[in-house]
Amino acid sequence: MAEEPRCPDKFTAVNELARRRGFFWQSYEIYGGASGFVTYGSLGARLKQNIERKLRELFVYKLGILEIESPVITPERVFEASGHIEHFKEPIVGCLKCKKRFRADHLVQECARISEAEAEKLTLTELKVMIEKNEICCPECGGTFDEPKQFLTMFKTTIGPYSDAVGYGRPEAAQGIFVEFKRLYEMAREKLPFGAMQIGRALRNEISPRQGLLRLREFTIVDLEFFFDPEEPDCYMLKDVENERLRLLLAETRLKNSDELTEVTVKEALKKGYVKLEWQAVFMALATKLLNDLGVPSEKQRFIEKLPWERAHYSLQTFDQEVLVERWGWVEVTAYACRTDYDLKRHTEFSGQDMYVFKEYEKPVEKQQLAIKPVMGKLGPVFKKGAAEVAGMLSKTDPKEVEASLKKSGYYMLGKYTILPEHVDIKHEKIVERGRRFLPHVVEPTFGSDRLFYVTLEYAYRVKDDRVLLSFPRDIAPVQVGVYPLVSKDGLPEKALLLHKMLVDEGFVAEYDEAGSIGRRYARADEVGIPLGITVDYDTLNDGTVTIRDRDTWKQVRSRIDELPELLHKFFGWKINFEDLGNPI
Amino acid sequence: MAEEPRCPDKFTAVNELARRRGFFWQSYEIYGGASGFVTYGSLGARLKQNIERKLRELFVYKLGILEIESPVITPERVFEASGHIEHFKEPIVGCLKCKKRFRADHLVQECARISEAEAEKLTLTELKVMIEKNEICCPECGGTFDEPKQFLTMFKTTIGPYSDAVGYGRPEAAQGIFVEFKRLYEMAREKLPFGAMQIGRALRNEISPRQGLLRLREFTIVDLEFFFDPEEPDCYMLKDVENERLRLLLAETRLKNSDELTEVTVKEALKKGYVKLEWQAVFMALATKLLNDLGVPSEKQRFIEKLPWERAHYSLQTFDQEVLVERWGWVEVTAYACRTDYDLKRHTEFSGQDMYVFKEYEKPVEKQQLAIKPVMGKLGPVFKKGAAEVAGMLSKTDPKEVEASLKKSGYYMLGKYTILPEHVDIKHEKIVERGRRFLPHVVEPTFGSDRLFYVTLEYAYRVKDDRVLLSFPRDIAPVQVGVYPLVSKDGLPEKALLLHKMLVDEGFVAEYDEAGSIGRRYARADEVGIPLGITVDYDTLNDGTVTIRDRDTWKQVRSRIDELPELLHKFFGWKINFEDLGNPI
Repeated sequence: MAEEPRCPDKFTAVNELARRRGFFWQSYEIYGGASGFVTYGSLGARLKQNIERKLRELFVYKLGILEIESPVITPERVFEASGHIEHFKEPIVGCLKCKKRFRADHLVQECARISEAEAEKLTLTELKVMIEKNEICCPECGGTFDEPKQFLTMFKTTIGPYSDAVGYGRPEAAQGIFVEFKRLYEMAREKLPFGAMQIGRALRNEISPRQGLLRLREFTIVDLEFFFDPEEPDCYMLKDVENERLRLLLAETRLKNSDELTEVTVKEALKKGYVKLEWQAVFMALATKLLNDLGVPSEKQRFIEKLPWERAHYSLQTFDQEVLVERWGWVEVTAYACRTDYDLKRHTEFSGQDMYVFKEYEKPVEKQQLAIKPVMGKLGPVFKKGAAEVAGMLSKTDPKEVEASLKKSGYYMLGKYTILPEHVDIKHEKIVERGRRFLPHVVEPTFGSDRLFYVTLEYAYRVKDDRVLLSFPRDIAPVQVGVYPLVSKDGLPEKALLLHKMLVDEGFVAEYDEAGSIGRRYARADEVGIPLGITVDYDTLNDGTVTIRDRDTWKQVRSRIDELPELLHKFFGWKINFEDLGNPI
Repeated sequence: MAEEPRCPDKFTAVNELARRRGFFWQSYEIYGGASGFVTYGSLGARLKQNIERKLRELFVYKLGILEIESPVITPERVFEASGHIEHFKEPIVGCLKCKKRFRADHLVQECARISEAEAEKLTLTELKVMIEKNEICCPECGGTFDEPKQFLTMFKTTIGPYSDAVGYGRPEAAQGIFVEFKRLYEMAREKLPFGAMQIGRALRNEISPRQGLLRLREFTIVDLEFFFDPEEPDCYMLKDVENERLRLLLAETRLKNSDELTEVTVKEALKKGYVKLEWQAVFMALATKLLNDLGVPSEKQRFIEKLPWERAHYSLQTFDQEVLVERWGWVEVTAYACRTDYDLKRHTEFSGQDMYVFKEYEKPVEKQQLAIKPVMGKLGPVFKKGAAEVAGMLSKTDPKEVEASLKKSGYYMLGKYTILPEHVDIKHEKIVERGRRFLPHVVEPTFGSDRLFYVTLEYAYRVKDDRVLLSFPRDIAPVQVGVYPLVSKDGLPEKALLLHKMLVDEGFVAEYDEAGSIGRRYARADEVGIPLGITVDYDTLNDGTVTIRDRDTWKQVRSRIDELPELLHKFFGWKINFEDLGNPI
């Protein structure tokens, strides 16, 4: 895109176009706007849905991932278990004079000129020291700050009429999947591996949202949790993508203050241990292709490995997929975390519900095992009524521990009871294990729908002959076809409306426009990225042919109306190209 | 559906099936469940999406309604303007002994045996009297109640780090449309009528949710706001549906304690004034057809006109579309409110932003208008420095009022200034009006996605030969095709998997199943409503034909694999029937 003018920058240009043509804008403008909230207009909502449809096609329809819908409002207990209550916080400071509040790490980052990564690492005490040392004061009024403290960035509310029933708006959609693991596992017919995903609203109560669509308080997240047996982490799809290339910025490179990329195939990335898990690498390869399909070339993408202190509290290794945008540099659009069994383990602990799965061995395994049995004939006379309790307690005690104590001390203290060697019978028994109980491990690809939307828009943005056009890939364009009568008279509008109705009935997203000159209508259509324009003219009335115009090249071909449905289905299904739609003019 | 057994009732049976096969279940079960929240599993999420797709096809693609996406979290000011802060309340009472809280009107309705409609009408004082008179006590512990009070049934939160920035989870999606009216009007190219809709999550903090999917705290709503010029309320689509029949339970009938239906055509309903607005009647006819398409026959539907005290605070006339369900009787699934210019007027007042539209007359209109002009030569000497102020004040005064006062009393008091006839020049002037400023009026069809989901499920529920099947209309079935190898050996699974992949690549939602006997697999498929089952057997390997089985009749036909894509596309597009898919067996 080197041919394009750089002034105003694309972020400004894209946002202005988006507002003017109704792709998106800040919500509640008439009330002064609300930071971190956007409303998608007609074209934007459809583009967003088309991007989400691509994700659904890839994961749900092709890979068989289970798509679910769970609530945004979540009881507090769930986020206690997940660790959010403890970890989902940002440091803030308040101005003692004007009472305004700020992200402490952002202030320090800007004023002390350190990197975002460095600022994120600072503790509250370190932030305090940095603020004092750099004499950072309130950017609004110059006042001094109070002590930095942690602010929980979840939206808090109460569920029902009791003030102690605390709930939160979910900051991600993953927990809605983890808490339902048992049902999902049933749905997957108790077989691993399987995945579940959901596309839904999430809420993060950012202290001071900025960067438009890139940092919202309310946004759409796509969380995919892929569950597998940690003893069988192989990915059956690996061979389909093993030669795809991944562009990695590794943690070890970053620690050397370099941003040099390591470009390797999926196979190499796994062999060299750059990416820990096969499924993780495969999802990264699929995401590279997905971004290509949204119009972002591979050389504008990279996967940055998070440093230990940047990773979420649950993750063993995380890569963020970043896309290069003009104003902001590299921005995260998707992420790949190895969540291990963290979430299922925590929910097992917190709910008391067993989330373990049982996997039968192909052949049962015989094992020797130490067993302890009470000798009731001896216990009865000694412990009287307590004998039954002793027997019960013994069954819950580790035989090894009892054996060791008897050997060492000649007795074992079982609560208040003193157990002597003659009270118990300890011996090796043969047992047959039919299978194995374990918690599945999880790889989590996660997608920011609004961020994918933004990069799609920026990468579609082109200037040609001083005119703007949005060159969306044809299968995600919010409107597929424009239908135009050449002039608004002589029966052309009627003919064009019939054509429009036919296309709509055939399932195409078509728009009819008769306002203004044909050139102006083409320009309007290019600006919102309609791939094809079909013009009805006087010849149409005679021979049933129309002109089809290409958005990107402005080339035109002539086709028969009755052949249009089939031709257009093939065109939008990527089976033919523009030139195949008719005879060149 | 008279042929079906009635025990257990359908509500129980449908909920049990839904839970077992993963259509939906109460969320957060491992933590004891959260009332009023459900999670849709894989089949449920897809069925729900298919129902929402039907709405989108009807309104967005066919009628050109603008679909938007706006946030759930909404600043308080918006709901002050909309009237929700004042009106969106329910009466509660708390037990003085066990502290549990209850919907006061529900308690009174149950204990005093009055209707829901009567209970809803009661004021706090009336509720208190009813509770005392009927000696209603706590159903949990028998304790006595405190004073009834109003409970705001919106989820409250704060936006950002300041506790005074109050926000609410939206209880409907309409305000997200109204506050953006100016942008939407631009998108509609400043022409009326036009509509905007959104499908999204909404939150109502019910005091004690019950009835499963029918009363949720978090649900999906579809709000469509249709804006029109109140002086041109005609619907250009009327003639397409004017002979469709509407089944109305009118307010006047209800006031006579009757539930007799008035069955009329759309045309008659309008002519007799039963339905106030053409657009409202047209949307009601479209919704009847939509419910038919979801499997609910017309005779199980009715439109009940709300009584004045049942209507929302903004509505002039409201019909609820109700569907008869076995356990609960008639339940609301959609509603049609005439919101007039209530919302746009309120947002104009509260935001100070002008939401009026200007409509140019075809020909400018000449009008006579009384005008008042200060005679400065007279005013100056009398009022000195006050003369300019007098002139300013006069320009904002109604000339008629001044003229009348001068005629009657010989003077006019303009604030502290006494105006005499010689100070002003009052005369008729010719002015040219180029158009008219007004606030558009609104008809609002609104759909409860979860309720549509429930009635679709209940009406799909059938029992045939003691086996359950979900007889979904073929275009909304969550899975379209099941693919089965007759046995799991001899190359049949491989062949079936190839067929499965071909169907998925062709865009069908297909499921592969090789577990258990073929009869058991058919039964599993019928139970989740898969319309077609395709079985690969030994003949397939020789001649490339397969058996296709119909879910509802269990009939079978034999077809060629290479013809399947085209046949299935036609079948699911309702262009051919099951018998046309191949040769009968």
